Amino acid sequence: MTPTAAERGRETRGQLLDAAAQLVGEEGWGGVTTRKVAERAGVRPGLVHYHFASVDNLLIDACLAYVERELSGMNQLLANTPDRGTGLAALLEVMASYSSDNPGTTIFSEMLLAATRHQRLRDELARMLRELRHTVADWLARHGDPGEAEATSAVLLAVIDGLILHQLIDPNLHSLPLVVPLRRLAGLPTETGTEPPGQ
Amino acid sequence: MTPTAAERGRETRGQLLDAAAQLVGEEGWGGVTTRKVAERAGVRPGLVHYHFASVDNLLIDACLAYVERELSGMNQLLANTPDRGTGLAALLEVMASYSSDNPGTTIFSEMLLAATRHQRLRDELARMLRELRHTVADWLARHGDPGEAEATSAVLLAVIDGLILHQLIDPNLHSLPLVVPLRRLAGLPTETGTEPPGQ
Repeated sequence: MTPTAAERGRETRGQLLDAAAQLVGEEGWGGVTTRKVAERAGVRPGLVHYHFASVDNLLIDACLAYVERELSGMNQLLANTPDRGTGLAALLEVMASYSSDNPGTTIFSEMLLAATRHQRLRDELARMLRELRHTVADWLARHGDPGEAEATSAVLLAVIDGLILHQLIDPNLHSLPLVVPLRRLAGLPTETGTEPPGQ
Repeated sequence: MTPTAAERGRETRGQLLDAAAQLVGEEGWGGVTTRKVAERAGVRPGLVHYHFASVDNLLIDACLAYVERELSGMNQLLANTPDRGTGLAALLEVMASYSSDNPGTTIFSEMLLAATRHQRLRDELARMLRELRHTVADWLARHGDPGEAEATSAVLLAVIDGLILHQLIDPNLHSLPLVVPLRRLAGLPTETGTEPPGQ
């Protein structure tokens, strides 16, 4: 069976989104042009204009698709952890993977900066951030609510992005026993902390 | 008394640094030119080249001077707080002040992104981040060590930058009772938490 025109259109659109996200990681938001995206995706430049109203619109959709994929990975990771302690350890590993040579790190940074200028990107990211916050809050509550699960989730997500930023500057950050304060934040006992044992 | 040539030089240098930091906040790192900085500082463009080897060097020094000022404010704020609880509340207020219409927010974001490309900026920021981490760890330890003060300090500083980023996307973030998980992180009792009272 040969693909229909609609199927080919969807495939081209997907290739353009992937190429655009890669290029944001390599050249920064401002460095991406229609020509470069078309070249990377292996299609005619005219097709970029056919599928997207502007380069900014293409980059916004590309970054949002990228974030959706990363978030669905994170949701799966949380769904598969048996308790808060295992989940926190897994989150710390995810964080550590966002080093300066991970293109995802640049894509996220460029996107957050672009979100200050593009209302649609900001609105969609706000929606995703709220959804992720609810997911993590539900996960915390399911495994023994530490108190104020929603606010705890917001702080935990802030820790993740903050540590990703800080380890770009100081790659030795992960030599510190970060899991101790993270466990305390999530209401779990620590060897050196002041919480009661047995949770 | 008229100022000496050295004094005038230092003054011009300071004006150029201030103008450059302002322009990073308004136009982004890539949007700043020698001409614009000279215009904003009210000096001849040639003086920019006299004081700085390149625009990037000027922007790096401008951002570092900006961060030094902000950090000294934060150091003073911590030195003046009588206990951890007051300090955390003060930190939350500082965070909330970094809204999307605060030029400091853009300066910080642009600088962090530029740090991935400029080694000198990255090295200096790493030094400042480590110093600030030690200061906050000392402050935590002085007011009743929660356990792993250095790692707790690293996580606390990550929370601050993470929340600043997330509130750019979702300005309603501060309606959540963020102080509860922050107190737990710092080893302080919370009304709803599981920690023992009386600290």
